[in-house]
Amino acid sequence: MRFLSDNTASVCPEIFAALAQANHGRVHAYGDDEWTGRLDRCFSDFFGTEVRAFAVTTGTAANSLSLATLSPPYGAIFAYEEAHIAVDECGAPGFFCGGAQLALLPGEHGRIAPQTLRTALADHPTHLHSVQPAVLSVTQATELGTAYHSRHLHELAQVAHERGLRVHMDGARFANAVAFLNCHPGDISWRAGVDVLSFGATKNGALGAEAVVFFDHALVKDFELRRKRAGHLLSKSRYAAVQLLAYIESGLWKKNAERTNHLARRIARAAGPALLHPVEANELFLRLGSARCRQLRGAGFEFYDWGSEARGEARFVVSWDQPEGDVEALCEALGRL
Amino acid sequence: MRFLSDNTASVCPEIFAALAQANHGRVHAYGDDEWTGRLDRCFSDFFGTEVRAFAVTTGTAANSLSLATLSPPYGAIFAYEEAHIAVDECGAPGFFCGGAQLALLPGEHGRIAPQTLRTALADHPTHLHSVQPAVLSVTQATELGTAYHSRHLHELAQVAHERGLRVHMDGARFANAVAFLNCHPGDISWRAGVDVLSFGATKNGALGAEAVVFFDHALVKDFELRRKRAGHLLSKSRYAAVQLLAYIESGLWKKNAERTNHLARRIARAAGPALLHPVEANELFLRLGSARCRQLRGAGFEFYDWGSEARGEARFVVSWDQPEGDVEALCEALGRL
Amino acid sequence: MRFLSDNTASVCPEIFAALAQANHGRVHAYGDDEWTGRLDRCFSDFFGTEVRAFAVTTGTAANSLSLATLSPPYGAIFAYEEAHIAVDECGAPGFFCGGAQLALLPGEHGRIAPQTLRTALADHPTHLHSVQPAVLSVTQATELGTAYHSRHLHELAQVAHERGLRVHMDGARFANAVAFLNCHPGDISWRAGVDVLSFGATKNGALGAEAVVFFDHALVKDFELRRKRAGHLLSKSRYAAVQLLAYIESGLWKKNAERTNHLARRIARAAGPALLHPVEANELFLRLGSARCRQLRGAGFEFYDWGSEARGEARFVVSWDQPEGDVEALCEALGRL
Amino acid sequence: MRFLSDNTASVCPEIFAALAQANHGRVHAYGDDEWTGRLDRCFSDFFGTEVRAFAVTTGTAANSLSLATLSPPYGAIFAYEEAHIAVDECGAPGFFCGGAQLALLPGEHGRIAPQTLRTALADHPTHLHSVQPAVLSVTQATELGTAYHSRHLHELAQVAHERGLRVHMDGARFANAVAFLNCHPGDISWRAGVDVLSFGATKNGALGAEAVVFFDHALVKDFELRRKRAGHLLSKSRYAAVQLLAYIESGLWKKNAERTNHLARRIARAAGPALLHPVEANELFLRLGSARCRQLRGAGFEFYDWGSEARGEARFVVSWDQPEGDVEALCEALGRL
Repeated sequence: MRFLSDNTASVCPEIFAALAQANHGRVHAYGDDEWTGRLDRCFSDFFGTEVRAFAVTTGTAANSLSLATLSPPYGAIFAYEEAHIAVDECGAPGFFCGGAQLALLPGEHGRIAPQTLRTALADHPTHLHSVQPAVLSVTQATELGTAYHSRHLHELAQVAHERGLRVHMDGARFANAVAFLNCHPGDISWRAGVDVLSFGATKNGALGAEAVVFFDHALVKDFELRRKRAGHLLSKSRYAAVQLLAYIESGLWKKNAERTNHLARRIARAAGPALLHPVEANELFLRLGSARCRQLRGAGFEFYDWGSEARGEARFVVSWDQPEGDVEALCEALGRL
Repeated sequence: MRFLSDNTASVCPEIFAALAQANHGRVHAYGDDEWTGRLDRCFSDFFGTEVRAFAVTTGTAANSLSLATLSPPYGAIFAYEEAHIAVDECGAPGFFCGGAQLALLPGEHGRIAPQTLRTALADHPTHLHSVQPAVLSVTQATELGTAYHSRHLHELAQVAHERGLRVHMDGARFANAVAFLNCHPGDISWRAGVDVLSFGATKNGALGAEAVVFFDHALVKDFELRRKRAGHLLSKSRYAAVQLLAYIESGLWKKNAERTNHLARRIARAAGPALLHPVEANELFLRLGSARCRQLRGAGFEFYDWGSEARGEARFVVSWDQPEGDVEALCEALGRL
Repeated sequence: MRFLSDNTASVCPEIFAALAQANHGRVHAYGDDEWTGRLDRCFSDFFGTEVRAFAVTTGTAANSLSLATLSPPYGAIFAYEEAHIAVDECGAPGFFCGGAQLALLPGEHGRIAPQTLRTALADHPTHLHSVQPAVLSVTQATELGTAYHSRHLHELAQVAHERGLRVHMDGARFANAVAFLNCHPGDISWRAGVDVLSFGATKNGALGAEAVVFFDHALVKDFELRRKRAGHLLSKSRYAAVQLLAYIESGLWKKNAERTNHLARRIARAAGPALLHPVEANELFLRLGSARCRQLRGAGFEFYDWGSEARGEARFVVSWDQPEGDVEALCEALGRL
Repeated sequence: MRFLSDNTASVCPEIFAALAQANHGRVHAYGDDEWTGRLDRCFSDFFGTEVRAFAVTTGTAANSLSLATLSPPYGAIFAYEEAHIAVDECGAPGFFCGGAQLALLPGEHGRIAPQTLRTALADHPTHLHSVQPAVLSVTQATELGTAYHSRHLHELAQVAHERGLRVHMDGARFANAVAFLNCHPGDISWRAGVDVLSFGATKNGALGAEAVVFFDHALVKDFELRRKRAGHLLSKSRYAAVQLLAYIESGLWKKNAERTNHLARRIARAAGPALLHPVEANELFLRLGSARCRQLRGAGFEFYDWGSEARGEARFVVSWDQPEGDVEALCEALGRL
């Protein structure tokens, strides 16, 4: 029973069907097709404002291409100290931005406090000898399975904008955050001050499709050239676009996110005091101790250690296609521990 | 009737079926799945030697990641003057290699002559003030629809290796070259001296899958880190791997290439003296004059001008899913001109 | 008798004296000193317009830092095919610009014709698959010892600006060009449309000091950060600044340039029909044949082959400290050949 | 009375005299001169082992070029959290290394403890999703005016080497460390496991000259190309080389370092309990409080706040040309506080 990650999941039938429907005839390549042509409209409706939206195949590409449009090579990118861009992308932001430096901030349960950012910016030099504060990147839902409320984001973005920084959101699990907060997608993006959003779909049911959503249209030309140059402009673009269209238009994004959030909360109740962080998306972090981790593995559960094995902390992620039986079994097993 | 490019094509039913078959259950992400695990074996059998093979989604990624493993930032990459890496990738080699410089060479019908390379290398300075000759990149089939014979490649690679350069092949239409030359895939790759091959499948029927094939295994670790860092390591890797497996194992690569080559030759016969280059793959270049180009477009044919419209040269590409009726109609239209 | 290059020369007494005069006391580092503080005024007076001027130690630094402020990573930089930035800087523009690509143009006697640029720009694609035309870089005096007249430059800059390109001038031998053209420095820089100038002093008598002169002040902040980041902001900046001040304020730039131009013309007269290019600065290019080259070397003259030795072409450069006797001896020797 | 930094200092008479002596005649440029030719020998004798030594003009260049020879673009460079490379070079390591990431470590009095490095390396992932541990960079004397003993360095280097990292030393104040430790230069460099050393001379009396010293000769070719490409190969190289020769051969390095160390200790005694760190070089860090800082400034002393002004911490640096009177006055003033 695999709780390793939501990217172990298969592709949702709705999305697979959409791929099949798009699979006929010779259409213009590199985005000049009807499916790609509908992305802007689809995402503008979704967010309630005019946006420009582009498909790429990975979250790392979405994040780093976004950051490269926001930070000069001598920029400092402020992010949570365990942010995906900091620890899971093999230095991609440095590569795409031509050497930009990360400035890492602590945060309770994976969320950066506005005061933490304010202090960090006040302390950060701006003379010629220092990298220049350029971007705040926040993750929604966070790397620790929590969500930023819109007011929190708004305050963070305000601190950033006052100091001239732009705001990027890594929304690999954006749908889970919307589902948890029960808010409008615009509330935790552009209305809260986000300039560019990496909008994830892969983890939540797509084959390989993430949208880069620009609330600031001035960045689009630069982005498009950087995307091509990075090998992330797909020739058969229709197959990425149609995934995103199906994901949004069918309401799949919400259905899947609500299901995984719900199942994660069930596990959370079973885990009780072992919980390290509030469960506000589809991820759980448990302090189990090494012995119990081994026990669970012995019982057929797959999951990752969080940090070194010795630490005895574990991460469980619920996938959109997780059988309910897996969850029930895990709940029981946790109850027994 | 679209003859714009083979990347306008849809996905082959065999490949689509393979995607569907792989679409079940939660499997390890990032390449640790059974399909990705079979790539090395599959490609080793295909090439008749032990190789390491990795999937990426675009030709630009395959080419630039390959080049980045072969060239230092201060390297010079020798290539045909209209090579895809030189004119169609928005400077990707410079981005991936950290600034490597292209050294462009002329070539009859898109093929670099060994003597041209020899002279260019003899003339190229190697002192500290100059970029250092590092890589020869050849395209097979070439950008002008011709193919390099194995002996020609062998001679080129020998010139390159003698001077310490490594050899990269952009094989976006590798299958078409093999089909035309009626040779073993190894004959025009490793046996001829190629160190790294970008092996295309997308244009010839896949959804979005190219293999980077390493005949020199020492480059693999560097490649893998660069791939991740460039956002080209797919989380749901199985869907890229399974395309390549289906493409190779079913013989689809050959079936499709033979069909498009064959149809292209039929058009070539109809075009007669208008042909600018020998037709040795699925592309045709015709000198028609602007008036005839307009006439053909008026008759419902879509194709690209080659160079400025005023030049009156046109490129036609046959896709794997091109209806035979399109080809017949084009032959007739060309006959009438 | 060395005619290898003007950078073999020693430091002018006037400049050495200025270094000595600045050598007392502890002054603020990194440019916050009185000498550096006078650069803007000094260069503004020199050029007859308000400029911002910055010292660096090498021409490669001046050129590449200038280009990096003008070109995005996906930019194309148009330059003469044997430009210093193309063949003598080990790929520095690619490094500093994050991968920008050079687009090389032919030119009679080292000068790009406006029509050549116009055609190249008309032919250069601007779609997403191509690097984007960003900069025209011209060298004054040129790599072949000729000078651009102001009208020529004006026309070139106009072509460039119309297409949205910025104009950089590599003025490693700017003083020689001014001396030859007998014009105001502004006439062949900002009045002709130059946006950023690499203003050389090292070859013409300084120890190691080049000015980057911004006629477009908006580029300055970006430049300053890039300069620091590239290790080209000197801690003891006074010693670079004072060289430039002495060079300009004492009229040394003109005195030295006039002398070396004059001596070069004397050699040109002696060389007669062997001359490959008009002599409009302090460099001469002669077609002598290999045998005569050997003869001259046997007679004690040092100079570089231009191209391979077999080609029999030679370059002679007159340095500011070249003894007149060297020149006389060379004239005689050439006369005898 | 300026105690701002040792790079506010003028040039030592011995070094200025050496510049004057080298200032005659036309010599080969770009390092092919007798002075540059003597660098390897001079530094080999100095360190007691065969080294390759190269001159550059700034510490940032020396550090970043060194790091670029040691770290791949996807490398992690471990350094003290306030290291010059981390906070004072505007992201230069990221630029020169093509995006390498810094991994910052705490350290008492500016020194990284071997156990801190051991733990950090044990915790640092090495899978494909992470930057790869590549370099340990230590500063000698440290940014807080302390020195690493040879045993300490040896232990650090051992931890690094065991994990496959290379060791770089930022020796901007290397001479001060040797003087304090009263050891052989080899003891705190190659014998302790340093692979490449940035050897500073500018702060201690030179005009602008730092040596990059390679104990591992295999790195030299890569370095030389990167240096040229970064605009750090000087055409009139003799003037940089001769500074280093004079600095080493005359014993000036030691004389100046002993003087400034000695004067710093005098101030330290006067400062007493205000001292934040042991004084083992020519820098002092004092906790004075904002009021006393203002008082001292009112009395004519110039120095930098360490951190924000409100923190009330100050840094004083003694320059080689600091008048003894300045020091006496400062001692008295501190005594009065």
